[in-house]
Amino acid sequence: MNKPIINKQTVIFKNKPAVIGRYALVGPKEGEGPLKDYFKHVLNQDKFGEKTFEKAEKKMLETVVFSAIEDARLKLDEVGALLSGDLLNQIISSSFAARKFRTSFIGLFGACSTMAESLALGACLVDGGYFNTVACATGSHFSTAERQFRGPIELGSQRPPYAQWTVTAAACTVLSAETQGNGCVNLNCNKQNDNAVPPNKVTAHKKTKNKTPRVTAATFGKVIDYGVSDVFNMGAAMAPAAMATLTAHFADTGTAPADYDHIFTGDLGKLGSDILRDLMAEKGYQMGQNYSDCGAMIFHRGQNTFQGGSGCGCSAAVLNSYIMDKLQDGTFKKVLFAATGALMSPTSSQQGESIPGISHAVVLESD
Amino acid sequence: MNKPIINKQTVIFKNKPAVIGRYALVGPKEGEGPLKDYFKHVLNQDKFGEKTFEKAEKKMLETVVFSAIEDARLKLDEVGALLSGDLLNQIISSSFAARKFRTSFIGLFGACSTMAESLALGACLVDGGYFNTVACATGSHFSTAERQFRGPIELGSQRPPYAQWTVTAAACTVLSAETQGNGCVNLNCNKQNDNAVPPNKVTAHKKTKNKTPRVTAATFGKVIDYGVSDVFNMGAAMAPAAMATLTAHFADTGTAPADYDHIFTGDLGKLGSDILRDLMAEKGYQMGQNYSDCGAMIFHRGQNTFQGGSGCGCSAAVLNSYIMDKLQDGTFKKVLFAATGALMSPTSSQQGESIPGISHAVVLESD
Repeated sequence: MNKPIINKQTVIFKNKPAVIGRYALVGPKEGEGPLKDYFKHVLNQDKFGEKTFEKAEKKMLETVVFSAIEDARLKLDEVGALLSGDLLNQIISSSFAARKFRTSFIGLFGACSTMAESLALGACLVDGGYFNTVACATGSHFSTAERQFRGPIELGSQRPPYAQWTVTAAACTVLSAETQGNGCVNLNCNKQNDNAVPPNKVTAHKKTKNKTPRVTAATFGKVIDYGVSDVFNMGAAMAPAAMATLTAHFADTGTAPADYDHIFTGDLGKLGSDILRDLMAEKGYQMGQNYSDCGAMIFHRGQNTFQGGSGCGCSAAVLNSYIMDKLQDGTFKKVLFAATGALMSPTSSQQGESIPGISHAVVLESD
Repeated sequence: MNKPIINKQTVIFKNKPAVIGRYALVGPKEGEGPLKDYFKHVLNQDKFGEKTFEKAEKKMLETVVFSAIEDARLKLDEVGALLSGDLLNQIISSSFAARKFRTSFIGLFGACSTMAESLALGACLVDGGYFNTVACATGSHFSTAERQFRGPIELGSQRPPYAQWTVTAAACTVLSAETQGNGCVNLNCNKQNDNAVPPNKVTAHKKTKNKTPRVTAATFGKVIDYGVSDVFNMGAAMAPAAMATLTAHFADTGTAPADYDHIFTGDLGKLGSDILRDLMAEKGYQMGQNYSDCGAMIFHRGQNTFQGGSGCGCSAAVLNSYIMDKLQDGTFKKVLFAATGALMSPTSSQQGESIPGISHAVVLESD
């Protein structure tokens, strides 16, 4: 007799893969924002010593993967697989960064949902015993995204007030079946791996309590398209996908927003997260004070980013700095992290298509 | 005490996810090649009734996913997740096709290795109990790839004799923890799902024995770069990655080429597969008569494709037609399928980068 087919979007991890290392690196502008004290590594200049912005983005990804593995106190060959993706055509930042690592590479594309996609898949691979340890990474760069998706930076095109600003940042989380890493205490950020690219600037961190965040559940999102076609209005394009994933998550797990110490969405920005609050209210969920959006958190109002940050690196950097710090020091015990992505390309927009969105979510709990 | 860290690239599936449905669709040129009788669906024209080649590629992906799910005798909502990727910037073919399915979407980028990447990951998700049933898909289109990666088709640029031809094809495999599908017998290819796009032409198939192919192992590849930078010489760029994955697979599993009824590589083409034979011989493995390359199989010499086919759809279509047919009728009992991808973009090539390759592999066995 066939077993009933399970059609839930949420998987629960019995073995609760542990976050044993992590690293977040941001650009100079992000390093002046409200979260500046949480970022371990702030670039002095956008190009990171490289000739092109694309090469800088690749180097950012290399750096965070090396540094997260080092943070986990592992050797490079002790990581089974690298799961990574980015915004660039053919995810060249991830693919080219992966050349530096003699580990299996699983290339992903989830636009700005990639941090959650890589964590969700990576947690499946670790929880299921397929790999003992995986590195989950992503990144984005303002200048590479701007010139690929919109136009030459030199044009200085005016941005509408509902636009967001692509964040220059990269981050990596190392997940493991064991807790043999440094439990994410991040005390050794000055000790660099031989192969690691030395950081331009390392911000000292105060010692935090050594709680270990673990991935306890993941909700794989569906592609949702409400017909938004304005490439500057990413928040509106992605909010319905975030709503779909959050409501699926709450239904699948029998939880409600109040069951989480905090809920973070990826990079809806201020407008997008307001839209999400409305959409959730229509579905009967009140998103209260325990809800924030990483895109709305990363810049000050005075930084002229309008609705806030976007890009794969935005939620990835906030997760691997502020959120993980708060999970480790006991401020948060249970967090729902739902990164959001807009799945269009300039070609699809030119051919008259609207912008589908996706959101993947993971639950992080500290012991 | 910590368990030893497992650093093998190969995972063995205890529950052996079953191929319960599959579908391959090819363009007119591919439908005139040596494998024409194995393809269930041959397009009459390249644009598949759409206004642009990109929209045609998306429709091809929609069609194969719908049809593979139908082949599995499942309803659309009985599939837990769609794992798909393609060559286009931001994998728009996969993302936009996924809008049609109310199922979780896991976007991948592995260039032409995507069929193996999606099967390897999909098999992990099914084997581990995270999803009961997943659809693994990919596709490519000559005209979309040509104008994105090389130049306007209208230019009619001359191709060097070591070039390959991007295959117009898409394919999907449905994997399940159960064997409740039609066991891939493909008797119902005329019965279309209400939502499915009707095929232009359906080739009748003779009834085959009902053996069920199963994914029994997967080897996740590393990114390998031997410094090839000629964007026409994909076979040479990808052959080292295929060598690395095959030798890792043999070492991890304690097998040799002779232990497989047949070994297929993705789309190295004639030149690339000759290079692979040499590289494998250097490593002590003789690739004999039981080795073929999907790119070298899909076109006749007279079709002016020089070294043969390439593109995500090439190995995907050959796997989901010829190879699966032979696994079902008992000709093959154990097949090693290693798809190969070149991970460059026009931007990376313009910035002086070489072309890294990757190859993921799966073992398919029929009972």
